[in-house]
Amino acid sequence: MSTADLLRDLVTANRIIAHEGVVDAYGHISVRHPERSDRFFLSGSRSPELVTLDDIIEYDLDCNPIDLRGRTQYTERPIHGAIYRRRPDVRSVVHNHAYEVIPFTVAQNAKLRPVLHVAAGIGAEIPVWDIRHRFGDTNLLVTTIAQGDDLAQGLGANRVVLMRGHGAAIAGISIQDSVHTSAHLKINAKIQAEAMRMGGDVVYLSEGEIAEMRRTSAGHARAWEYWTRRAGITG
Amino acid sequence: MSTADLLRDLVTANRIIAHEGVVDAYGHISVRHPERSDRFFLSGSRSPELVTLDDIIEYDLDCNPIDLRGRTQYTERPIHGAIYRRRPDVRSVVHNHAYEVIPFTVAQNAKLRPVLHVAAGIGAEIPVWDIRHRFGDTNLLVTTIAQGDDLAQGLGANRVVLMRGHGAAIAGISIQDSVHTSAHLKINAKIQAEAMRMGGDVVYLSEGEIAEMRRTSAGHARAWEYWTRRAGITG
Amino acid sequence: MSTADLLRDLVTANRIIAHEGVVDAYGHISVRHPERSDRFFLSGSRSPELVTLDDIIEYDLDCNPIDLRGRTQYTERPIHGAIYRRRPDVRSVVHNHAYEVIPFTVAQNAKLRPVLHVAAGIGAEIPVWDIRHRFGDTNLLVTTIAQGDDLAQGLGANRVVLMRGHGAAIAGISIQDSVHTSAHLKINAKIQAEAMRMGGDVVYLSEGEIAEMRRTSAGHARAWEYWTRRAGITG
Amino acid sequence: MSTADLLRDLVTANRIIAHEGVVDAYGHISVRHPERSDRFFLSGSRSPELVTLDDIIEYDLDCNPIDLRGRTQYTERPIHGAIYRRRPDVRSVVHNHAYEVIPFTVAQNAKLRPVLHVAAGIGAEIPVWDIRHRFGDTNLLVTTIAQGDDLAQGLGANRVVLMRGHGAAIAGISIQDSVHTSAHLKINAKIQAEAMRMGGDVVYLSEGEIAEMRRTSAGHARAWEYWTRRAGITG
Repeated sequence: MSTADLLRDLVTANRIIAHEGVVDAYGHISVRHPERSDRFFLSGSRSPELVTLDDIIEYDLDCNPIDLRGRTQYTERPIHGAIYRRRPDVRSVVHNHAYEVIPFTVAQNAKLRPVLHVAAGIGAEIPVWDIRHRFGDTNLLVTTIAQGDDLAQGLGANRVVLMRGHGAAIAGISIQDSVHTSAHLKINAKIQAEAMRMGGDVVYLSEGEIAEMRRTSAGHARAWEYWTRRAGITG
Repeated sequence: MSTADLLRDLVTANRIIAHEGVVDAYGHISVRHPERSDRFFLSGSRSPELVTLDDIIEYDLDCNPIDLRGRTQYTERPIHGAIYRRRPDVRSVVHNHAYEVIPFTVAQNAKLRPVLHVAAGIGAEIPVWDIRHRFGDTNLLVTTIAQGDDLAQGLGANRVVLMRGHGAAIAGISIQDSVHTSAHLKINAKIQAEAMRMGGDVVYLSEGEIAEMRRTSAGHARAWEYWTRRAGITG
Repeated sequence: MSTADLLRDLVTANRIIAHEGVVDAYGHISVRHPERSDRFFLSGSRSPELVTLDDIIEYDLDCNPIDLRGRTQYTERPIHGAIYRRRPDVRSVVHNHAYEVIPFTVAQNAKLRPVLHVAAGIGAEIPVWDIRHRFGDTNLLVTTIAQGDDLAQGLGANRVVLMRGHGAAIAGISIQDSVHTSAHLKINAKIQAEAMRMGGDVVYLSEGEIAEMRRTSAGHARAWEYWTRRAGITG
Repeated sequence: MSTADLLRDLVTANRIIAHEGVVDAYGHISVRHPERSDRFFLSGSRSPELVTLDDIIEYDLDCNPIDLRGRTQYTERPIHGAIYRRRPDVRSVVHNHAYEVIPFTVAQNAKLRPVLHVAAGIGAEIPVWDIRHRFGDTNLLVTTIAQGDDLAQGLGANRVVLMRGHGAAIAGISIQDSVHTSAHLKINAKIQAEAMRMGGDVVYLSEGEIAEMRRTSAGHARAWEYWTRRAGITG
């Protein structure tokens, strides 16, 4: 896929995560440069629903813009840079504050885990990272390289890391994958919370089932076509 | 009703279940061939909201396409074939993952039962089937004839079978019936979950009430007209 | 107000209760004849969102149509006729199945009561009527004069009566009043259910507050203007 | 900013709080006069979604209109006047009934507190005011100067005061700020209620974090752009 096509997918992905309620005014999605693994693309500071091609900025992994052209930047771009640096397998990152997910970042007794087969991509283990552990009282935003590194360390080898009182970071092997995972993180959170309220034990997917589901990942193309159309993109 | 009219209803039904939130990117609805009980019609692999007449594929009960013409198929078509084989009374099948229903497939203490009169069509007994019991760790998708048969056996003589960590299969006597049942399965699940949280006992419909309601099934035509218009079909 | 203007309001009211989620495919609203208190107007069998002036049928209080002209009738029209017969003060009736309200009809320990000032119109006492008490196993629909009478007796001198496993009937002094009450019945149910889940006692409106609120009923005109516009009626 | 621009922002703010579900038919937003601190602007009695420039009325701090021109007034304008009188730092006030917030006004054991970083603006301490304590049984509306004063006293030096069985008043340093705070009050309430239901302790933002977040208040401009577009304002 050419870089131009990839950037068009990135714009589409911004619209999709907005339309599906994965993000609201806040949140962002990035993609690693297809030809230079030490670069990534991320929009300038704008709500995902409004992002266009002109907003996309190229960054090095220290989060320095290659050619800013006066555009305002997201202060939280270190989330992206740090994950790309630590995880060569990751090609796309979403950061968001889905309302269904946040309760799992602050409720001490609850642990987010996959209950639904199409949500298997969120992974068996979803750590919760707390910026306070290393950085004390902050505004909770991940705005320095050191904070981004600490978050990336919290993510470890997993697909998703929750951020206490803030949201989540999702690491995917493609734009389509990080969109699919972040959308189903939200859906799984909603369903799991409801099941937990029903009083008895909840049956989660087994490790074997999660592995099988991720190996096959059927239906991703179908979901991408569906979400693209719903977001009003006809191209 | 001619086969052509029936297929138009099938397309309408796809739009309706998408618009009413019975399905999202995933899920499907089929109808048995009106003239050949050993055949059924099901869309190719596409989200229900986007299905058109050109997507509809004719299948035999072993889920072999009669004339594929290069279209991609749903891998889970054995859900449909197996139910049509075991249940000559069934003329339409819905498979879906409604978010309100899934908690009842994984919460050990909760049992989905009709609380609302217009939901009586879901039936007094709604079994929960678990693919793991016979097939061990899988990706949970029902992709083989053997898995479809096991599910159809789990359904038994009922209208609905829940699938652990996955969704549901709904068996109707017509397209309108399977749409009505799957829509009200979701509505009933939402209402029942809320009532269960209120602390005391919940009054469910009696067997006699369910039988009376299904005998009369008033209002199906009114709902169909309403849902068709809401889905933007003016025809 | 002329009868013609009143019927236009009735059509508007149908659209409003559909748009605000007070009804879905089912449910209806009627108004007493402004010049003949032994007559009322109610749509023929059609979902409220689709009702037009041509659908409105005039009835006597025994629910006989004055001039049917081939239109299909709601089978549950005795809900309306019976309430108008027993309650000369009532000039408009809504029957609906709002999803937020139904849990309160089947949860044994929960009692719907006003918690929100603008919902005071639902009244301090909201009885729950069960068709089974006098009529045994039925399809729960109120289709006979005797059933309607029993329901109207259950309503008593109140504004709202809940119907077990079915929905509610709301009695107003005008179309605007029954719409306002049924909309806020739903809003109050949602809020009260949430408050009940928070663990401690819930503070309900006092009888004195309910009386004060109903005496003043400020803001009804503002809500009507708002709902009319939202329902797409510009007139 | 000129007064004309400010009034345009006030109209935009009305549309935003309607579109984002901060208000429904009821609720209002005002702004202090930029040149005369003893005046404020507030719409005439109309639902926020419908407010236009022509609806905006100028008031003194006793809530007397400067030039009414036959327009109907909100009876609850003393909420605004009283807060502007007691709190010179406040430049914009929202009064609303968001459904997610009201449970916290009536549930005895629940206390609304920030759990989400972007909601830090609601403040560490959110008092609940009850009109009954000083005024006995009323219709709960704040319609007199004395009632407004009592509410403003209840607010104290905080950003938000909850009103039992009624809603909330939000005090901001600008239109954008009061809109942001009231939108996130609702989002925080929804998330906190969900977290509370998960059974264990909930981690709230620390005082230090709240202070840091409010000091930086990053992203307000991005949210304003986003909400403006979503509300259909292109200007």
